[in-house]
Amino acid sequence: MPPPAIPGEDGDNRPMPFAPLKNDTFLRACWREATDHTPVWLMRQAGRYLPEYVATRAKAGSFMGLATNVDFATEVTLQPLARYPLDAAILFSDILTVPDAMGLGLSFEAGEGPRFARPVRDEAAVGALEVPDMDRLRYVFDAVASIRRALEGRVPLIGFSGSPWTLACYMVEGAGSSDYRLVKSMLYGRPELMHRLLAVNADAVAAYLNAQIDAGAQAVMVFDSWGGVLADGAFQDFSLAYTARVLRQLKRDGADGQPVPRIVFTKGGALWLDAMRTLECEVLGLDWTANLGAARARVGEGPHGKALQGNIDPNVLFAPPARIEAEVAKVLDSFGRPHTDTATRGATHIFNLGHGISQFTPPEHVSVLVDAVHRHSRAQRLAA
Amino acid sequence: MPPPAIPGEDGDNRPMPFAPLKNDTFLRACWREATDHTPVWLMRQAGRYLPEYVATRAKAGSFMGLATNVDFATEVTLQPLARYPLDAAILFSDILTVPDAMGLGLSFEAGEGPRFARPVRDEAAVGALEVPDMDRLRYVFDAVASIRRALEGRVPLIGFSGSPWTLACYMVEGAGSSDYRLVKSMLYGRPELMHRLLAVNADAVAAYLNAQIDAGAQAVMVFDSWGGVLADGAFQDFSLAYTARVLRQLKRDGADGQPVPRIVFTKGGALWLDAMRTLECEVLGLDWTANLGAARARVGEGPHGKALQGNIDPNVLFAPPARIEAEVAKVLDSFGRPHTDTATRGATHIFNLGHGISQFTPPEHVSVLVDAVHRHSRAQRLAA
Repeated sequence: MPPPAIPGEDGDNRPMPFAPLKNDTFLRACWREATDHTPVWLMRQAGRYLPEYVATRAKAGSFMGLATNVDFATEVTLQPLARYPLDAAILFSDILTVPDAMGLGLSFEAGEGPRFARPVRDEAAVGALEVPDMDRLRYVFDAVASIRRALEGRVPLIGFSGSPWTLACYMVEGAGSSDYRLVKSMLYGRPELMHRLLAVNADAVAAYLNAQIDAGAQAVMVFDSWGGVLADGAFQDFSLAYTARVLRQLKRDGADGQPVPRIVFTKGGALWLDAMRTLECEVLGLDWTANLGAARARVGEGPHGKALQGNIDPNVLFAPPARIEAEVAKVLDSFGRPHTDTATRGATHIFNLGHGISQFTPPEHVSVLVDAVHRHSRAQRLAA
Repeated sequence: MPPPAIPGEDGDNRPMPFAPLKNDTFLRACWREATDHTPVWLMRQAGRYLPEYVATRAKAGSFMGLATNVDFATEVTLQPLARYPLDAAILFSDILTVPDAMGLGLSFEAGEGPRFARPVRDEAAVGALEVPDMDRLRYVFDAVASIRRALEGRVPLIGFSGSPWTLACYMVEGAGSSDYRLVKSMLYGRPELMHRLLAVNADAVAAYLNAQIDAGAQAVMVFDSWGGVLADGAFQDFSLAYTARVLRQLKRDGADGQPVPRIVFTKGGALWLDAMRTLECEVLGLDWTANLGAARARVGEGPHGKALQGNIDPNVLFAPPARIEAEVAKVLDSFGRPHTDTATRGATHIFNLGHGISQFTPPEHVSVLVDAVHRHSRAQRLAA
């Protein structure tokens, strides 16, 4: 006897096709196609600044209890979309799921951030590292599929991973760090060990993102959160080269046959835009130190240009509404009027913060920001 | 009856002239004159990585006990020079002496870093701020004079201050910060308060550096340690503009009638080199994210160019000696062969770390670095 049909699946147990996409503004901007407004989403948009998130997390008992439970992960991913007319959703998960699946023993201690029980600090530990069995990360792929269904085509779903270098920072340091002494000691003192670690990370990240794509992710983003702590030269060799190794292995088409754009965000990476231009990706994320107009001139124009994502300082959200609106306009105006010719590709902008939203952000200020992006960016296009 | 003559002063109580300078390599590089090697000194070269420093600090009882005692401050300033053939000395002091003199109540709690008892967070607190009476900072100027005498002309003495913005970060946050939420909330929410705070800081810093120059400092450096956390636009308006306000007020000649070069170091500021080019200073400091060759091409050449200072990652000092030497050579080579024509000014480089030396640095590795800079930079000049 076949198993009973369950909601969202048809009688012979094959998943129903996903609902058609209603708002494709974000994806079109990724592909550098003209849109009638600048799409906006916020890094860490599902997070502690939302009381409904705090309530779900309390039910889950812990951060990893939240991230590993498909229903909870779906619930919190959709929470900001219920409040704000955001143009994309992003998988709720942690950046350290992959090293956790490698057996490093991830935990979150109250007020301390993530910690690994078994950091990777010597030749034996590096030698023992392997690309983990993706079955250990099944909870992530199940969350992707669940969220994609729950979205019902409202906006596209972004999958993500930490970059090989960013994961390496946590894996070697064993926790957050202010000076990156241990990971850089390995980099400068035992570069061959660091290269081996990064190669394993890159192949693991590629497998992880490909499984998210298979599960329904419509775009993928690599967070190189700590690339900017590297010296010039070391960034190219130890971060960029391994992000490139990830990108080379990524599937081009998603579960529904649609092409999947790739976003790379290096915090503190605006100095290296010329180098990042060579990456096989469609979008480059920028933090608030970058001037979007200068970045556009450098990498945003021409047939091989990149779409740009970013880059308002999240601390702007602590200012009164009128000042938030003025700062939003400044960021949009620094990019300038986006490409508007529907027949060609050109310079496009995806509005975002330059880093994750602060837990102390007043939720009503996020409404002000999102509305200001939509309103001002429409006006920008109408101005001749 | 005149007071008795004391060592270092003549009979009618006027200070003896300072001893003539034996090693002027650093000053000549500041003025973009040819030198036979690249001068080197290290940010925080008098510090916890040296056991003799730890011993003196134990005698002093506390960090501020050390910084406020002229004899101890002189002793620790000279300690690294006894070990290494460094080309400059830098005043041992704290970056927060000026806001302390404004009455904010500086303390150092064990393992916690600096803390202000009375942070500046509202209109009343900003309104009450004034340029402090420089007599409250007499201990700093006395230390400058004492160190200058103790150096006996061996190498030049650099005086320093935090930048107006960097001081503001500590004054508003009340301590170190990871997100600069409070100071940026004031910046975005009450920009007029932030401008008033920065104007007071700039005038105080100018008076403070001028008094160091009068006391015997042969060069001065502004540490804009937190300029790099600002957004593009905000950096120019809230950090650079007030560093410029400091520089405009500085005395051009030192106690001995020699001109005093001015160094500005913005951590994370390499993106804004074109803007910094306009500063009235001779030297720009760079952290390790900058490519020295690219920076030289941008601001180092031509009659109005700047000397460049920096920029090796302090974590290189954790690597074995052969790798330290290789990384030193990479940094020197990225700048390229300095200007060698003794009749003109041209591109010069002062070797330094990209940030303060780590307390965990093996002292013998500093010898390796300093010797490698001298040796490789002499060879660079001989190569045709």
